[in-house]
Amino acid sequence: MRVRPTGDKERANVARIVAFTSDFGIDDAWVGVCHAVIVARDDSLRVVDLSHDIPAYDIRKGAMVAASGALQLPDAVSLGVVDPGVGGSRRAVVVRSGQGRLLVGPDNGLLMPAALRTGGVESAWELDPERVGVPEPAPTFNARDLFAPAAAALALGADPASLGDPIDASTLVDGPFGPARREGGLLVGEVLDVDRFGSVRTNIAGDDMDALMAAGGLVEIVAGHTTLHVPMGRTFSDVGEGEPLALVDSTGWLALSVRGASAAERYGFEPGTPVRLRVD
Amino acid sequence: MRVRPTGDKERANVARIVAFTSDFGIDDAWVGVCHAVIVARDDSLRVVDLSHDIPAYDIRKGAMVAASGALQLPDAVSLGVVDPGVGGSRRAVVVRSGQGRLLVGPDNGLLMPAALRTGGVESAWELDPERVGVPEPAPTFNARDLFAPAAAALALGADPASLGDPIDASTLVDGPFGPARREGGLLVGEVLDVDRFGSVRTNIAGDDMDALMAAGGLVEIVAGHTTLHVPMGRTFSDVGEGEPLALVDSTGWLALSVRGASAAERYGFEPGTPVRLRVD
Amino acid sequence: MRVRPTGDKERANVARIVAFTSDFGIDDAWVGVCHAVIVARDDSLRVVDLSHDIPAYDIRKGAMVAASGALQLPDAVSLGVVDPGVGGSRRAVVVRSGQGRLLVGPDNGLLMPAALRTGGVESAWELDPERVGVPEPAPTFNARDLFAPAAAALALGADPASLGDPIDASTLVDGPFGPARREGGLLVGEVLDVDRFGSVRTNIAGDDMDALMAAGGLVEIVAGHTTLHVPMGRTFSDVGEGEPLALVDSTGWLALSVRGASAAERYGFEPGTPVRLRVD
Repeated sequence: MRVRPTGDKERANVARIVAFTSDFGIDDAWVGVCHAVIVARDDSLRVVDLSHDIPAYDIRKGAMVAASGALQLPDAVSLGVVDPGVGGSRRAVVVRSGQGRLLVGPDNGLLMPAALRTGGVESAWELDPERVGVPEPAPTFNARDLFAPAAAALALGADPASLGDPIDASTLVDGPFGPARREGGLLVGEVLDVDRFGSVRTNIAGDDMDALMAAGGLVEIVAGHTTLHVPMGRTFSDVGEGEPLALVDSTGWLALSVRGASAAERYGFEPGTPVRLRVD
Repeated sequence: MRVRPTGDKERANVARIVAFTSDFGIDDAWVGVCHAVIVARDDSLRVVDLSHDIPAYDIRKGAMVAASGALQLPDAVSLGVVDPGVGGSRRAVVVRSGQGRLLVGPDNGLLMPAALRTGGVESAWELDPERVGVPEPAPTFNARDLFAPAAAALALGADPASLGDPIDASTLVDGPFGPARREGGLLVGEVLDVDRFGSVRTNIAGDDMDALMAAGGLVEIVAGHTTLHVPMGRTFSDVGEGEPLALVDSTGWLALSVRGASAAERYGFEPGTPVRLRVD
Repeated sequence: MRVRPTGDKERANVARIVAFTSDFGIDDAWVGVCHAVIVARDDSLRVVDLSHDIPAYDIRKGAMVAASGALQLPDAVSLGVVDPGVGGSRRAVVVRSGQGRLLVGPDNGLLMPAALRTGGVESAWELDPERVGVPEPAPTFNARDLFAPAAAALALGADPASLGDPIDASTLVDGPFGPARREGGLLVGEVLDVDRFGSVRTNIAGDDMDALMAAGGLVEIVAGHTTLHVPMGRTFSDVGEGEPLALVDSTGWLALSVRGASAAERYGFEPGTPVRLRVD
């Protein structure tokens, strides 16, 4: 899933990418203003919008989208802003993951799933407005004055340590969800999200999934009060119209789909619904 | 409607444009990930979003938007992804139209109206993942791994034949709608779309329309069970507030509008409603 | 709030930004086509989308978003298109404000709040399609053929006088709202907008606000039939969950918020609701 070979940033004609997720919506000027702040810094910068349609204050959904982007875009800086505590005592941070992803946003758990899915938190820094270059950020719009400038600087190659002091990674606020847990023969997780096609995405991921997919056959999924035995497939068209299947989606998460219909509606699954998958 | 003189691509400071249409919506990371895949290839590349708010699996609407873009943007590569059969047996293709448009997407009819409105299908190729550079595309996200990289390569000047083998154009799946037919003194077509201003767009286009517009006066439009005699105008303000008019819209299609109100609501027209226009 | 030091445009690696606001929505090709028209002109051009989700024909909301962008992005050209009179007798104009902002769009009041909040109207020109380079703009899509090319030219440094003849600024159509008025000890304005977080933004702005904020304590706001005494704060988290506060938002306007809830719903405020603020 690496979209660009390592070393490309040395080339003259390579874009530096900031992948932006927020709950700003698309009916106000906020998103565009942040874009402008970033691209005004250097014309090699590009902003790609993961989603700004995160429901207001929905850290769970924002974290899921940001993590999905971080997994797929190893060379992008992740800018995430779902920030009910903006301007208050919560910290503004940069997190570097074990696989080298740089994540910028509020310290409220939003960035943690992205870090956990890309090698865990390796280091963290608290952004210092002075060093970011906007000594008095607007207290209601840190995205414009603090997070976007920091993300731009990082995408251009700045060392996180030039933007703020290191902080103890163990003090970072926990994410809204963690990885699924192994409990005996079960993987125990939860529903993260329902997408517009009705697919149900869970936080179950990883090697166990590959083994299941290789094995083929039916898998047992217990979600809430419903127990399903569904085939493990590669893609929606592996089953007939209206038939369910489990698959590993394009970001490595276990998803439950129904071909041509909504798995979420059929089975009544919602974000947060507990999910157990029998793996042996 | 040519936005850029031929030969411009030779200039150093010219953007190469990919015009992107999908049913991915804006609440997940899919669109942004495809943007990143494209712009990471070369910093001369630009992605413009035609629409990603195509209803899930709605090939008709996706095809209309993609065709509208292809007509207006002769120098852009068209990337279209409404792809219920992703990862299955449907082919991934490049189509070149008579006027030289390059269209990338699934072989499910989505690209056909764009081809038909720009000179018809001239040639077609089936994308070969190996030659596109992602030998094992994710079976649920061909947009990221196959279509976007192919569109980027084509925008940078790659020969379609370098990305896959030629296929017989007559084997391409038909579009969700064709051009309107001439039947005696009538042009017979259908409603393609209702826009957010309530205008009703049809697949009736071309020289007959110009003649009608030049002639002026009332035209007879029969849509479903309703017969209308409406003035042929140039723009909405050619009639009084609340008055209907027929016009050739900015993409050359016959549209029915009501100034300051919704023609679709007033007359009950929906996508797919048959439309006949008396032309002599 | 200056995002780029003056003089930067002389540098080779600086983006020229067009900040785009419209009521085109995101389900048709219009926005993307305008993007393509702009970026095809020169690869130093960048389009940032302020909002295209302005309700159809809603000049008030469009003007508010465009003004918000103009305030925050001093180096961007503002392109605004909410244009019910497209193709008719309304003029297509460029307005330059006292602080040097260049605003492009229809002469229907849309651009006036942006001008008034950035030093007032200094000069204005009527766009001449011939000189813009598209002698016969489509009568239903001036954004593509007239406004976007003009905005691109201006962003690249063109003199507005090269695109059309000067017009008497006093003949410009009034904006949908003006600045708040001082009436004795009151600032009298109106509600401009309710954002997705439920904050109520007003057209009350400026030095009086700074004095109030410095003074601290409760302020008296009368909106419609409701009188509120609310604390003046810096940011949402200055008050407890569910508590109201007044603040100067990131664009310098007085806003009324409730932490973690909707001020608009709680107090029944809508765009256009009259608002009075006691300032001494």
